[in-house]
Amino acid sequence: MSTVIKNGTIVTADLTYRADVLVEGGKIAAIGPGLAGDQVLDASGCYVMPGGIDPHTHLEMPFMGTYSADDFESGTRAALAGGTTMVVDFALPSPGQGLLDALRMWDNKAGRANCDYSFHMAVTWWGEQVFDEMQAVVGRGITSFKHFMAYKGALMVNDDELFASFRRCAELGALPMVHAENGDVVAEMCARLLAEGNTGPEAHAYSRPPQVEGEATNRAIMIADMAGVPLYVVHTSCEDSHEAIRRARMQGKRVWGEPLIQHLTLDESEYFHPDWDHAARRVMSPPFRSKAHQDSLWAGLASGSLSVVATDHCAFTTEQKRFGKGDFTRIPNGTGGLEDRMPMLWTHGVTTGRITMNEFVAVTSTNIAKILNMYPKKGAVLVGADADLVVWDAEATKTISAASQQSAIDYNVFEGKQVKGLPRYTLSRGMVAVADGKVQTREGHGQFVAREPGAAV
Amino acid sequence: MSTVIKNGTIVTADLTYRADVLVEGGKIAAIGPGLAGDQVLDASGCYVMPGGIDPHTHLEMPFMGTYSADDFESGTRAALAGGTTMVVDFALPSPGQGLLDALRMWDNKAGRANCDYSFHMAVTWWGEQVFDEMQAVVGRGITSFKHFMAYKGALMVNDDELFASFRRCAELGALPMVHAENGDVVAEMCARLLAEGNTGPEAHAYSRPPQVEGEATNRAIMIADMAGVPLYVVHTSCEDSHEAIRRARMQGKRVWGEPLIQHLTLDESEYFHPDWDHAARRVMSPPFRSKAHQDSLWAGLASGSLSVVATDHCAFTTEQKRFGKGDFTRIPNGTGGLEDRMPMLWTHGVTTGRITMNEFVAVTSTNIAKILNMYPKKGAVLVGADADLVVWDAEATKTISAASQQSAIDYNVFEGKQVKGLPRYTLSRGMVAVADGKVQTREGHGQFVAREPGAAV
Amino acid sequence: MSTVIKNGTIVTADLTYRADVLVEGGKIAAIGPGLAGDQVLDASGCYVMPGGIDPHTHLEMPFMGTYSADDFESGTRAALAGGTTMVVDFALPSPGQGLLDALRMWDNKAGRANCDYSFHMAVTWWGEQVFDEMQAVVGRGITSFKHFMAYKGALMVNDDELFASFRRCAELGALPMVHAENGDVVAEMCARLLAEGNTGPEAHAYSRPPQVEGEATNRAIMIADMAGVPLYVVHTSCEDSHEAIRRARMQGKRVWGEPLIQHLTLDESEYFHPDWDHAARRVMSPPFRSKAHQDSLWAGLASGSLSVVATDHCAFTTEQKRFGKGDFTRIPNGTGGLEDRMPMLWTHGVTTGRITMNEFVAVTSTNIAKILNMYPKKGAVLVGADADLVVWDAEATKTISAASQQSAIDYNVFEGKQVKGLPRYTLSRGMVAVADGKVQTREGHGQFVAREPGAAV
Amino acid sequence: MSTVIKNGTIVTADLTYRADVLVEGGKIAAIGPGLAGDQVLDASGCYVMPGGIDPHTHLEMPFMGTYSADDFESGTRAALAGGTTMVVDFALPSPGQGLLDALRMWDNKAGRANCDYSFHMAVTWWGEQVFDEMQAVVGRGITSFKHFMAYKGALMVNDDELFASFRRCAELGALPMVHAENGDVVAEMCARLLAEGNTGPEAHAYSRPPQVEGEATNRAIMIADMAGVPLYVVHTSCEDSHEAIRRARMQGKRVWGEPLIQHLTLDESEYFHPDWDHAARRVMSPPFRSKAHQDSLWAGLASGSLSVVATDHCAFTTEQKRFGKGDFTRIPNGTGGLEDRMPMLWTHGVTTGRITMNEFVAVTSTNIAKILNMYPKKGAVLVGADADLVVWDAEATKTISAASQQSAIDYNVFEGKQVKGLPRYTLSRGMVAVADGKVQTREGHGQFVAREPGAAV
Ligand SMILES: [Zn+2]
Ligand SMILES: [Zn+2]
Ligand SMILES: [Zn+2]
Ligand SMILES: [Zn+2]
Ligand SMILES: [Zn+2]
Ligand SMILES: [Zn+2]
Ligand SMILES: [Zn+2]
Ligand SMILES: [Zn+2]
Repeated sequence: MSTVIKNGTIVTADLTYRADVLVEGGKIAAIGPGLAGDQVLDASGCYVMPGGIDPHTHLEMPFMGTYSADDFESGTRAALAGGTTMVVDFALPSPGQGLLDALRMWDNKAGRANCDYSFHMAVTWWGEQVFDEMQAVVGRGITSFKHFMAYKGALMVNDDELFASFRRCAELGALPMVHAENGDVVAEMCARLLAEGNTGPEAHAYSRPPQVEGEATNRAIMIADMAGVPLYVVHTSCEDSHEAIRRARMQGKRVWGEPLIQHLTLDESEYFHPDWDHAARRVMSPPFRSKAHQDSLWAGLASGSLSVVATDHCAFTTEQKRFGKGDFTRIPNGTGGLEDRMPMLWTHGVTTGRITMNEFVAVTSTNIAKILNMYPKKGAVLVGADADLVVWDAEATKTISAASQQSAIDYNVFEGKQVKGLPRYTLSRGMVAVADGKVQTREGHGQFVAREPGAAV
Repeated sequence: MSTVIKNGTIVTADLTYRADVLVEGGKIAAIGPGLAGDQVLDASGCYVMPGGIDPHTHLEMPFMGTYSADDFESGTRAALAGGTTMVVDFALPSPGQGLLDALRMWDNKAGRANCDYSFHMAVTWWGEQVFDEMQAVVGRGITSFKHFMAYKGALMVNDDELFASFRRCAELGALPMVHAENGDVVAEMCARLLAEGNTGPEAHAYSRPPQVEGEATNRAIMIADMAGVPLYVVHTSCEDSHEAIRRARMQGKRVWGEPLIQHLTLDESEYFHPDWDHAARRVMSPPFRSKAHQDSLWAGLASGSLSVVATDHCAFTTEQKRFGKGDFTRIPNGTGGLEDRMPMLWTHGVTTGRITMNEFVAVTSTNIAKILNMYPKKGAVLVGADADLVVWDAEATKTISAASQQSAIDYNVFEGKQVKGLPRYTLSRGMVAVADGKVQTREGHGQFVAREPGAAV
Repeated sequence: MSTVIKNGTIVTADLTYRADVLVEGGKIAAIGPGLAGDQVLDASGCYVMPGGIDPHTHLEMPFMGTYSADDFESGTRAALAGGTTMVVDFALPSPGQGLLDALRMWDNKAGRANCDYSFHMAVTWWGEQVFDEMQAVVGRGITSFKHFMAYKGALMVNDDELFASFRRCAELGALPMVHAENGDVVAEMCARLLAEGNTGPEAHAYSRPPQVEGEATNRAIMIADMAGVPLYVVHTSCEDSHEAIRRARMQGKRVWGEPLIQHLTLDESEYFHPDWDHAARRVMSPPFRSKAHQDSLWAGLASGSLSVVATDHCAFTTEQKRFGKGDFTRIPNGTGGLEDRMPMLWTHGVTTGRITMNEFVAVTSTNIAKILNMYPKKGAVLVGADADLVVWDAEATKTISAASQQSAIDYNVFEGKQVKGLPRYTLSRGMVAVADGKVQTREGHGQFVAREPGAAV
Repeated sequence: MSTVIKNGTIVTADLTYRADVLVEGGKIAAIGPGLAGDQVLDASGCYVMPGGIDPHTHLEMPFMGTYSADDFESGTRAALAGGTTMVVDFALPSPGQGLLDALRMWDNKAGRANCDYSFHMAVTWWGEQVFDEMQAVVGRGITSFKHFMAYKGALMVNDDELFASFRRCAELGALPMVHAENGDVVAEMCARLLAEGNTGPEAHAYSRPPQVEGEATNRAIMIADMAGVPLYVVHTSCEDSHEAIRRARMQGKRVWGEPLIQHLTLDESEYFHPDWDHAARRVMSPPFRSKAHQDSLWAGLASGSLSVVATDHCAFTTEQKRFGKGDFTRIPNGTGGLEDRMPMLWTHGVTTGRITMNEFVAVTSTNIAKILNMYPKKGAVLVGADADLVVWDAEATKTISAASQQSAIDYNVFEGKQVKGLPRYTLSRGMVAVADGKVQTREGHGQFVAREPGAAV
C-alpha cells in the first residue's frame, strides 16, 4: 500500500518547495508534482518536514530501584504526537557492568517502541572490559559514547578515564559525548548546602551554577582535542558552556552543542515557586538558567555555534520526585519534553523570527542525523530515505497540558503554554502514527537504527 | 540529446553517495543507479559536484581609460576550466551615472559569457535617482547591492549613505554587501607613505593593515543592524574582520564573510619580493596578510563563521600594473584566480583535512547560491536543477602556470603551485565545457540568472 | 598658617595606613604620626584621601543662546561639597573659532572657580589654524584634545579629521579623547524617529543604542592606533564600548575608558517614566543603559579595563530641558553629578565590595591625575603634593535631594538615593572648603593647572 | 651608620622624580633633595627603584634524593646580583608530611639567605592535619598556599581537594595559588610519548601543550570563584591561560597571572636544538611556547591583565638534567633566572617600549608586594619602608654568560643574550650587596618576612 502526501510545501534544512511525497514500503518513493497513491494525506497549507529526531532521552531509566515513568512505549508515543519520529536513548551500564550486557537490557526495553530508535552507550566506568567491548558496541551500530563528568560516586568518570575513552573513540571512529558539569564541585556544593539547611529544590540550582558547566565543557573540549576526536556536548544550558564551544569552534575544532527546549524557554524563576512539587518537577541537570543565558542559546542556534535541540526526556512522576523531600539531592533529575519540543521550538523560534523554518528542520532533525551518521536515511526528505515525516500545520494551536498529553506522568513543565504549529500527520517509516492530530501509534513498530563509525566531521 | 554522468560519487553540501546523473535540456533529469543517455561521461573514481559559483568578479572592468584584461569571454572560460560554472560580477555605475544605465553596459559585456552569470549592483553614490532605480534593479533580478567603504573620492560612500542604502535594501528585500576598509584612513596613509617616499608596491600593504579592515567591517555590521538587514562582507582577509563577523553572529545577527582563495593561501611576504613586477601583480585590496590571519580564515570556514570562498578576479596585465611605477596608489588593484580557486581550495583545504568535501561544496557553491536566493537552481545536484556540474578527479594533479592558463594575463599569482584535484568534466547547463581537462567552451552560451528578493536568512 | 589632619587613616590608590597630615602653604608639608599645626581637623574614624578629580565637566557651557546652569562657581562648589577638589572642563570652540580665542572665553569663566581646574581643548572643526594653534594650546598647559564623533552638523568631526588631529596629537605629545557615537547613524535615527512621531525623551535613548557607541569606540581606537597615540574614551556607557576597549588593551594598545557615575547607578527605565520632566532631565548622551551594561562597567573598574569615573556634569534646569518639548532632539543634553559622584560610588562600589577603597581613590582621582600628567601634584597624598584632600566619613549618611544640593538646578537625577560615605572635610590647596559637612568655599580660590605633554603611557 | 643614594631619579610603580634617598637602620629614613649620610652611593644617571621581588623560587628543593643546585645562599646571591632583593620560596611537604614539619625544614635551609625571603606553603595532599595546620601556617606569617594541578602521583591534588583547600583559604584570609596544567592528561601524554619512543627533551613540550595549561587555569578560576577566594596563577605561559584569566577579570573576578621571564623571551625552538643537553637544560613546566604566546604575555603586562614577572628559579646542573637521558619524564624540571630577570625584562620590555619604567617596577616588585600583603614594607620607595633598593644603570650592558654568573649551575638559558640595564648598586635592608656591579653579599643577612592574612584584593 502506498501513501501520498498531497499539496504540501516541503521544508528541509536546505530547501523550501512545493511537491507531493509518495511513500512506499516505509520509504520515500517519489517527490514531485501530481503524485498519486492508495492513501492520500492532505497537506494543504502545511509544511512537509523530516520527522524530528530527539538524540537525548532516558526511557525506562533505572533509578533507585524504580524506573523513569515514560518507557519506550509511552515515550515514543509522546514523541510521535509531537512530530518526533526517532529517539536516541542512553544505554547506561551499572558500575562494573559490561557494555554488551547493558545493551541487552536496553534492547529488551526498546522492543515496545512506536518509532525508530538508536542508542548511545554510556561509559560509566573504565577498565579493560570496557575498552574491549567498545569495539563490539561499535560493531553493533552504536557509534557514540556518553561520559558523565558529574554524578560523583555513581556515573562520573575522571579526566584520565575521559582521555582514555576519548582516545578509544578516536581509534574506533566513534563520537564521544559529555554531560559537562564539574562533579567534584557539585558534590561539595551539595554537601555544603545540605549542611547549611538548604534542602529544597531551589538548592539544586545553587549547587550547579553556570560556571560549573562552563568549566567542564571547556575541559572536555581540551581532552577531546588532545585525543584527536570531535566532541558532542549534551544539554548546553548557558553562555559559559556556549562560550567554550564557540571558542573551540573558532579555532577550527569540531565541537557541537545541544541546547534543550527546556533551557530555551524556561528559566530559573521556576525553582522559586512556593510549591515544592512545582519546583521539584523542574529539577534537572543542568538546571534552568536566567534569561541572559537563554538569549545566548538562541543566538547560537541562529549562528550555527549550537547545532541540535533535544529534550533529555527523563520523566518522573510527582510521587517519584517526592523521594527528595527534605533532601534535594535525592530528587530524581529529569523533566519531560518529547511531545512538546517541536511545537515549543516552532512557536518561540520560527514564529518569532529567531530561526528560519529551514534552521528549525536542521536543529530538530537533519543536523543530528548527520552528526550521528545516519543521514539521509533519517533527517531528509529525499527519495530512498525512511518515510519519517511530519506534516506541520503552522496555524494549528493548542495549550499544553498534562491532562491531554501522551506522557505517563501527572504534570508537564510547559503546562499552560500556548503553542502555534502542530503536526497534522506524523509518519514513522510510512505508518501514519498521527492523523489529523489523532494519535494511532503501533507498539513495537519502531526499529533499531544501526550507524556506521567514521562520520565525516 | 541527453548526457549521463556514470559511475561517480555525488558530493553535495549535504551528502555523499554513489549515483549516476542524467542531464537533459540543460537540467538534471534524473539521479540514480544505472542511468543511460546519448552521451556518456565517465566519472569513475571521481566526485560529481555542483559547479563552483564565484560571487565576486570584475570582468572587463573599466579602469583609467582601459579595462581589466579578462572579459566575460576569457574570464568565464577560465572559470569553467577550473570547475566554476557561474560568476556574479559587479555592475559599477560611474559617479552620477544611473543604475539602469550602468546595467545596460554590463548586459552588453556579458553577452560573450561562456557560463551563466548574475550581477550585483554597486551603489557608488547616493541620490534620489539611485534610491528610485534600486527598485527597478531588483525588478530586473538583481537583489544584492555592493557598497565601497574605501576608494575615497571615487567609489566610496559615507556612513549616512550606507545607512540610507541599507534601509532601502531592507524595504526591497535586497542584500547589502560591503567592501570594508576605512577609506579615510587609507587615503591619509597613502598620502603619507608617498610623501615619505614609499612609492613601491609594498607600501600598498602598509597603507591598509588588518585593523583598517576590521574597523570597517565592524561599522558596516552596526549600520546593517540598525537598518534591519543582513550583511554580506566581501573579501574578508583577516582575523580583525573575522572577529567582528563572529561577534555579530554570536549575537544572532545575520552576517556572512567571504574569504578569497588568495588570502587563504598567499601571504604578505609576496610584497617584499625584490622584483617590482612580482609584488605589483599581487597588489589588491585588502592585501595579503600574515599566516596567523590565514589560520583564522581556515578556522572560520570549518566552524561556519565564514561562508563563501571567492576570487575577486580582476586581472590586469603586467603592462597595466606598471601604470603604478613610482606611485603604488596607481597600480591597478586586482589579481586573477577564477581558474585556480577550486583546485587550490581542494588542495589546501580538503586534502589537508581542514574542511570536508561537503564543506568544500558548501563554500564554493551551495552557500552563496542560498545567500543570493538562487538555490537549488544553482548550487545543487537535484532533479530539476541546472546541470551546472563538475566531475572532480581528486587524484589529478598539475602545476599552475600562466603558460597554460585561460586567463588573458601574462602571469599567475599561484605560479608554480602544485595542485591535486582538478575537473575531469565541467558542464554548464548540460553543455560539456571541459572534457577530460580539454576546454571546449562556447562563447555566448552563458545566460543571466535573475534572482528574487526576500531570501530567508 | 598650618593645618593638621589628625587621627585619620590615609587611603591612597596604593596604600592604607594611619598617619597625620600637615598642610602648609597649600601643600602637604608632612605625613606621619603626632604632627601638630595651627588648625586641627579631626579625622578620627575617617579616611584621608586625595580629593576627587572630575575630568569631565561642562560648566557655563553655551547652548542655544543660553548656558548650562552650573557655572564655575556653583559647579566647583558642588564638587567640593562632594569631596571633589578639581575639575577638568572642555573648552569648546564654535565652528570656525580659533582654539586660543575659545580658550580666552573659558579662562574668563573659570575665574570664579572655588577649586582648581584645568581644560581639555575640543577640536570641533579642522583647518590649518586649528593645526597651528594646537601647539600653542599645548604650550599653555592643555595637553588633551577632545573630538566629537557625534553631533553631526555641529561639533562632529569626520574620520579624516580625526586622523589628522590624532596625528597632530602624536607630534605634540598630547592625548586625544573622543565622545564616541556614530553621528551619521544617530542623525538618521533621530530624523526617522521624529518622522514617525516619536518626539518624547524616550526616543532619545532609541536614537543611540549601545552598538552605535561601541562602533565609534572601536573606530576611534583603530584611528589612534594608526596615528600612534594612546586614546581616552569619555563616558563609556556600555558593554559594546567596553568590549572594544578591552579588546584593544589585550593587544597591548593604550586605551582608557571613563564610565560615568550615572551609567554605573541609573538605568534606561528612567526614560519610561510617565512624567516628561522626569525623563527629560535624564537626557544625556550616551543615554542610560540596561543593568547588564552596568555590570560590565563595574567589572571593568574592578579588573582595570576601565580607568576613571567621571560625571559629564552639564546641568540644565527643567525650564531649559523644556526647550525640547515636542522634539526630543532639542532637549539639552546633560545631567548633574559633581556633588554626588564620590558618595554614590563609595556607596555602590566600596560598601558592596565591588571595588576596594584603594581602587576608589584610583578611579576617582589618581588614575586621571596620571593620565593627564599632573600626578603627584594632584591625586596623591605625598609630601609636596597640593593639599587637595578629603576627609571621608564612611559612616556618614544622607539622602540625596535637590532641596539641599549646591547645584543651581531644580532637581537631581539621584533624588532620594541614600548614600553612606560623605566628606567630613574637603581641602582645596589647604583651604578648608567643607568643614563638618558645612560648605564654606571661596569664589575665585581655584587656580588653573597647567600640564606637560609627553606623559608616559 | 647611614647611607645616602645621591643624584638619582626615583622610579616607582607610581612616580618618576629626582630625589636622594637616606637609609638608616635598614630602612628608608628620608627622601628628598640634598640629603647627606655617612656613606654615599652615587646614582648619577641612574634610576633608584624598589628592589625586585621574585615570588617564585625553588632553592635547595629536594628532588630524587638530591637537591636543586642553587640553595638559599647562591640563589639569593644571584638575585641580588640582578637587582632582586627578596624571594618567596615554596615549602613543599612530602605526601603525608605535616605542613609545620615541612616548614621547619625550609626555615633551616633559609638561614643562609643573603636577602630577605618569605614562603608559600604547598598543599600537596589533603586531610584533617593539613586543614588544621593551615591555620598555624597563617599564624606563622605564611598566607599563600600553592596547589599543583599536575605532577600526578606526586604533588598533584584533585578538584575536590582544591575546592576544600580553597574554601579553607577563604576562611583564613589566605591566597590560593595554582600550578595549572591538567595532570591527568599530561600523565597520559607522557606515557604515550614514551611508548611511541619519543624519549627526548622535545617530547616534554609535546606532553603539555598550551591547551592543557589553559584548561587547568580555567578550572582553578571556577573553583576559586565557587569557594569565594581570589586566585594567583603561577607561571602563566600562554594565550590559553591568559585568555582564561582575562575572561575571569572581565567578569570582575580577582585573578592574577604571573608570566616568567623565560616565557617572555625564549621560545619552543630551544627544544629542537640538536644537542640533548641544550634542550634538557630548558626543560621546565610549562615549557617554552611559540612567539604568538609571547606577544600575548607582553600585551597582558601592558594592559594589566597579567600582574607579575617571576622566574620559577629551580636550577639543576647538566649532570642532574642527565638523570633524564632516555626518558624525558625524568629530566628534572626547572631553569635558572634569578640574576637575569630584571635585566632581561628591562631590555626586552622597557627599552623596546612595550612597558614603561613604572610598569617595570610594578611587575617586578610592587604588584606582588601588594598581592602578598607586604606592601609598603617591600616594593616601595617610601620613608619607613625596608631599604631594599636597586640603583639601576639603564646604560650599562653585558652579555649573559654562565662563566660569570652567581648561580651554582654550569650553564645559563640566556647564554649569549645582550642586556642593557643593570644594577649599579643593590641594597638589602640597607646593606650594600652589590656595589658598582661587584657582588659583596653577606650570608645569613636575609630575614624571614611574615605576612598578615586578609589582604584587600
Ligand atoms: Zn545529563
Ligand atoms: Zn541526559
Ligand atoms: Zn573590494
Ligand atoms: Zn572586488
Ligand atoms: Zn559627550
Ligand atoms: Zn561631555
Ligand atoms: Zn610549577
Ligand atoms: Zn615552581
